This record gives sequence, C-alpha cells and structure tokens, in this order.
Amino acid sequence: MAILLYELVGRDAQRPFSPHCWKVRMALSHKGLDFETVPVPFTEIPTIEGGVTKIVPLIRDGDRLVADSFAIAQYLDEAYPDRPTLFGGPGGVALSRFVESWSQRTIHPVVTSFAVRDIHDFLAPVDQAYFREDRERKLGARLEEVQEGREGRVDGFLKAIAPLRALLERQPFVGGEGPLFADYIVFGAFQWLRVASSFQPLPEGDALSQWFERCLDLYGQAGRKVPAAA
Amino acid sequence: MAILLYELVGRDAQRPFSPHCWKVRMALSHKGLDFETVPVPFTEIPTIEGGVTKIVPLIRDGDRLVADSFAIAQYLDEAYPDRPTLFGGPGGVALSRFVESWSQRTIHPVVTSFAVRDIHDFLAPVDQAYFREDRERKLGARLEEVQEGREGRVDGFLKAIAPLRALLERQPFVGGEGPLFADYIVFGAFQWLRVASSFQPLPEGDALSQWFERCLDLYGQAGRKVPAAA
Repeated sequence: MAILLYELVGRDAQRPFSPHCWKVRMALSHKGLDFETVPVPFTEIPTIEGGVTKIVPLIRDGDRLVADSFAIAQYLDEAYPDRPTLFGGPGGVALSRFVESWSQRTIHPVVTSFAVRDIHDFLAPVDQAYFREDRERKLGARLEEVQEGREGRVDGFLKAIAPLRALLERQPFVGGEGPLFADYIVFGAFQWLRVASSFQPLPEGDALSQWFERCLDLYGQAGRKVPAAA
Repeated sequence: MAILLYELVGRDAQRPFSPHCWKVRMALSHKGLDFETVPVPFTEIPTIEGGVTKIVPLIRDGDRLVADSFAIAQYLDEAYPDRPTLFGGPGGVALSRFVESWSQRTIHPVVTSFAVRDIHDFLAPVDQAYFREDRERKLGARLEEVQEGREGRVDGFLKAIAPLRALLERQPFVGGEGPLFADYIVFGAFQWLRVASSFQPLPEGDALSQWFERCLDLYGQAGRKVPAAA
C-alpha cells in the first residue's frame, strides 16, 4: 500500500509549497517508495488523521504515523534499509542536523522576508486570515512591512549562503557525488520560494543555482513539475 | 613507528596554536594512533621534509607524506579502517566539507579580527616580520587596525554561530553522541583563539562553551594540556 503524505497547499491543491513537505517528497522519491499525496490547507491540519498532529508533513505508512520532516527521513531509512540511504551513515545523520540548524537560521528567515506577503496571497481566503494573524503576531509586523524592500536584502543573503555556494563549487551535491537528505533540507527552502513567489534572488549560472536546477531534475523532474510562481 | 605531525608554533615550541594542526592532533588521538609532533615556526615550513609543502599540518606515516587537515583525516580513516571512524560513513565525509566551508567563512575571519595582533605577538621575531607583511597584505590593513574594537564584534559573532549553538543544545557533539572530525574542525578554530589570545568571546555556561570544554577534556585532556593564553 502506498505511503500517504499529507502536505501543505494554498488555493491550488496541485501546488505544494511547504519547505518541510518538499523535503519529504524528495526523500520518498529518493527511497524509490510508492506514495500518494493528500493536499491540506493550513486551517485543515487539525482535522487530518483524527487530529494527531499540529504540523505537516505527516506520513501514514500502513499503521504508522510519523510527523516532522527529519523524523520522517530517519523513519524511512530505518524502515527501508535496503533502499538508497538518505544519510550515508550515522555521521550523516548528525551532520544533517547541522545543515537543518543552519538552513532554519540562515535561509528560512530571509525567505520569509522575501515572500511572506506572496505566500499569503497564494493561500485560500480562510487560510489567509489564519496566516496573517499567526505570522504577524510572530513577526511583530504587518506582512507587507516584512516583505518591503526585499531587493535590498539580496546581497546580504548571498553573502550569508556563501558557505553553501563554496561547498557546491567543489562537489555536485551537499551529500557529495549524489544527493542526500541534507540536499533536500536546503532544496525545500528554495523550492518554497520558487513555488510561492516570483521573487528569485539567486543569480543565474552560479554554483548554487546550478545545484538547484540539478535538484529540480531529480526523480523525473519531480520538483520542476510544480511550476514556478508567475 | 609513530606518525610524525609537523605543526605550527610561535616562540614557545610547547604551544601549538594553528587551527588546522589542532584538527589533526585531535584526529590522531581519536584514531588512537601513536604520534610525535615536530614544532615548526612559520618561516621554517619551506624547509621541512625537503620542501614538499607550503602548508602545515603535514604528516609523515612511514613513507607517506600527507598535507592539508581534511586530506589527512581522510587518509587516516582509509589507512586505519579498524580504528574509530572520523566521519561515520560517506555522508559524514560530504557534510564535514560543509562544516569546514561554514567554519572557514563564519568563524575564521572573526577569530582573525579578534586576535591577529595577539597571534603576531605570540610568534618569534623572525616569524613576526613574515606574518605582519603577509597578513597585512591579505587583510589590506595594519594588524592593529584589524583587531581594534573587537569587543564590539562579539554580539555579531555570537549571532553568526547560532546554528552551531542550537545544534549543541540538542546533541552533545557535532558528530552526535560522540565527536567526529566535524567537531575537530570547529574545535580547532576556538582552540586557536584560546591558545593565542586572552580575548575569549564565548559566554560561560552556554551550550557552545560547554561543548568546547567537553572537547578540551577528550583524550586525557589533550587540548587542555596546552594552557590558555594569559
């Protein structure tokens, strides 16, 4: 039986955009596992699987329910050890946590500042109301104010992600010669921006853009099949 | 026969301080290998082993010479596969390159700005002349100017290393439950500062300081045996 992946969507159920859900989509493809996706708007998360989770991604694999993208990746590697590894050994698990910590603190807040209003507009009206209230409380500012002046933040962002760019100048994937879950951790953040916003800060042709294109091509262009925001 | 480790020293041959040499010191101890150190001041690097290298660390293992800290760690794991692993699998090798890239771009330039004049003072006179000329050319400023106002850069530094601190709040070592080469990559940078300068920016008691103390305790307190700068 196919694994079910509950993943966040906006108005258009065909356009999953959550960075964490993309990590799991890519991880399931990496493992070569059969899966089906269940689109879930923000305000319906509390209703799925009888209310077991406040967050997506959530997967159901037979009678197992697992939430949280990193926990799901670990579950998949343990449950399907004969499939391609997502971590490349225990060192890879530990250091993927560093990539996650870095991505959450270096990429995610900046993507929020680039696109939080665009993400709002991407949602269905009922989810827009939830999203605006929740995010404005957390950010301490109106969504419009957070996103304003984003062009001026591109240079600082490119500088902040220099350690990743330098890595990708020396090896094709974060995981080395081929992708690992660490790639999907970072890919998820850039795919979030690509799907939800037309604002794209990466210069064409640099090592990071080339790596992102390589990731979009993986698994029959799984990432590319969801078009970029117009 | 013991492995020889050529490592950088200042006036005092008992006080190795190079971050990259510390990575290898720790890696050799981690592998449980017998090694002897050969102290080398900056201006004598071109004379060692018949002039094979422009950089230290350099190791001689029998008739093998290997330079560059990461290459040495990879060599040790390949040559001594029955000893404790430095990477925890191929994923760990690839992701340790990210830790290295991040450390070189996030920690090293700031440590330089905290201590470059102190490092100068730590050297023998002949090395001071080389160091000042070389570093002032690369930095485009007098050593004194680079180091000036360092107190004002502590907050920015602590913010920049937040991804590492957050990781160490959830696991005792970068490598997980125990240390891996990725720990020594970052440890080397902080040990460089500890040995060469009395300026210590880490607040006592936070997760990063506690991790650094744990690293100093490893292998019979190998790191602690070289005292902190007074």
